[in-house]
Amino acid sequence: MGLILADDILARELQEVQHEVDAAFDSLLPVPQDSRRTLIEAMRYAAIGGGKRVRPLLLTAVASMHGVSRESAIRTACAVEAIHVYSLIHDDLPCMDDDDLRHGKPTVHQAFDEATAVLAGDSLHALAFEIIAAPETSTDPFVRSELVYTLAIASGYNGMAGGQMMDMAAEVEELDLHTITRLQQLKTGALLGAAVELGAILGRVPREGRALLRNYARDIGLAFQIADDLLDHDGDEQKAGKALRKDFEQGKQTFVSVLGPDRAREQAEALIEQAIGHLSAYGKEADLLRAVARFVVERDR
Amino acid sequence: MGLILADDILARELQEVQHEVDAAFDSLLPVPQDSRRTLIEAMRYAAIGGGKRVRPLLLTAVASMHGVSRESAIRTACAVEAIHVYSLIHDDLPCMDDDDLRHGKPTVHQAFDEATAVLAGDSLHALAFEIIAAPETSTDPFVRSELVYTLAIASGYNGMAGGQMMDMAAEVEELDLHTITRLQQLKTGALLGAAVELGAILGRVPREGRALLRNYARDIGLAFQIADDLLDHDGDEQKAGKALRKDFEQGKQTFVSVLGPDRAREQAEALIEQAIGHLSAYGKEADLLRAVARFVVERDR
Repeated sequence: MGLILADDILARELQEVQHEVDAAFDSLLPVPQDSRRTLIEAMRYAAIGGGKRVRPLLLTAVASMHGVSRESAIRTACAVEAIHVYSLIHDDLPCMDDDDLRHGKPTVHQAFDEATAVLAGDSLHALAFEIIAAPETSTDPFVRSELVYTLAIASGYNGMAGGQMMDMAAEVEELDLHTITRLQQLKTGALLGAAVELGAILGRVPREGRALLRNYARDIGLAFQIADDLLDHDGDEQKAGKALRKDFEQGKQTFVSVLGPDRAREQAEALIEQAIGHLSAYGKEADLLRAVARFVVERDR
Repeated sequence: MGLILADDILARELQEVQHEVDAAFDSLLPVPQDSRRTLIEAMRYAAIGGGKRVRPLLLTAVASMHGVSRESAIRTACAVEAIHVYSLIHDDLPCMDDDDLRHGKPTVHQAFDEATAVLAGDSLHALAFEIIAAPETSTDPFVRSELVYTLAIASGYNGMAGGQMMDMAAEVEELDLHTITRLQQLKTGALLGAAVELGAILGRVPREGRALLRNYARDIGLAFQIADDLLDHDGDEQKAGKALRKDFEQGKQTFVSVLGPDRAREQAEALIEQAIGHLSAYGKEADLLRAVARFVVERDR
């Protein structure tokens, strides 16, 4: 797997979540016998068997701390992951980042074609909301509509899509550290934060209690992005399964270009300690979340 | 306006809905003072001031038959219209239908660029779910989650996106009338049906009562598509505000190519009579829906 694992519980849990998310997508995406076949095959190609499943891991970890059924947690995790996967498909398009490789295999528009990639992304986006609005996810309609509302904001122009737009502007504008932080809080932080928050919503954690978990998510989100920038700067393309050093070659400002690799690494480690600090109200039941926090900066892909 | 209007109520109502939807989008999409500015400007460019607003008209007509507040109806109508507008932005992309004109002005990827068009579509897609999951749309969380579930299915691979995929296949495959009907029921029928159904959900019409309205929507959806095919076959590009005769030039099968223009027109008229027949349980309160049914085949753009 090429991961430096913080501990055994994390390794086992990560494998379990990967398996469950794959199985859930497999049953959510039956292949129809009409001309939509290729569309669903493209959705399956992107959604099944790829990715680290960090967001599902975060969501299920928070959900299990609050006694949520595994089925509810995995369905909701699939919704968040469907949003993540759709965003990767669209970000990889020729008119966006123009990437040929993702998770070590051809991107969707390479394996299929561009039109199919646009529609597969759009269909995964819709699927996310279909999954969490269904009674199978939670019998409580208030929980379902809270899940939808939180995920929709994290996905749209005040979240991930807005961050991607700022990121495109970063290729041509000079950005300071404050702006890069804000950009990354939207581009990757919003969905990581939503993963944690959706787990807490399923667990009926009141809004005040969710604030601590959101702070945890905000800190690991930034640390995660710094780790990604470091990976882009000095990682191994083989292990990463995608092209690296693109940001550097395009002269794009990142945490590493602004802070330098050493200060960036220190900053990521400080954020992880801060993230773990937000969990001080929890006992052993939050050990998995603590392990996840360390994992996000130690991963090498 | 270039419309042949069935009656005065319809003309007044259509204008009113157009005005209210524009005003709602204007307040839902404030332009931020950061590098997301262009993204929100592109969303506004596509969402405000264009289109006939047939879906909002249908939704508000059904909602007002069932005593729904105007604010709830217009917010929900904006959600359905946001899905419609996002689908037009993506369908117009060079890798899809490659259109330069929409509602008489340059398409989003022409007025901005392709990457902005992809993200503006994605952001409108997310916005739709954000709007209807918000308590401002309905204080009843059951209503909110029903709205989301119904709209998500209509938008995804079992609805609009699936229909668009079948439509792309129609450019290279021979299709029979049954398959064209199925394709169009997904591509345009699903979202028109959702507009009617969302109005009924807001009005707490039970599932059985919604079936009649769904049948009405299914019939006018097909009639609407036949009218669109006829427009593509012998319409005026100036009035339509978009390129016509593309389907014919690409040798794509449509209702008109399979049935011929005369039988297609007869078929559309029969569907409208059938649609109006589904409303026989309603009295004068359904007169607007009856007028809408006639309007969809008489429009010339």
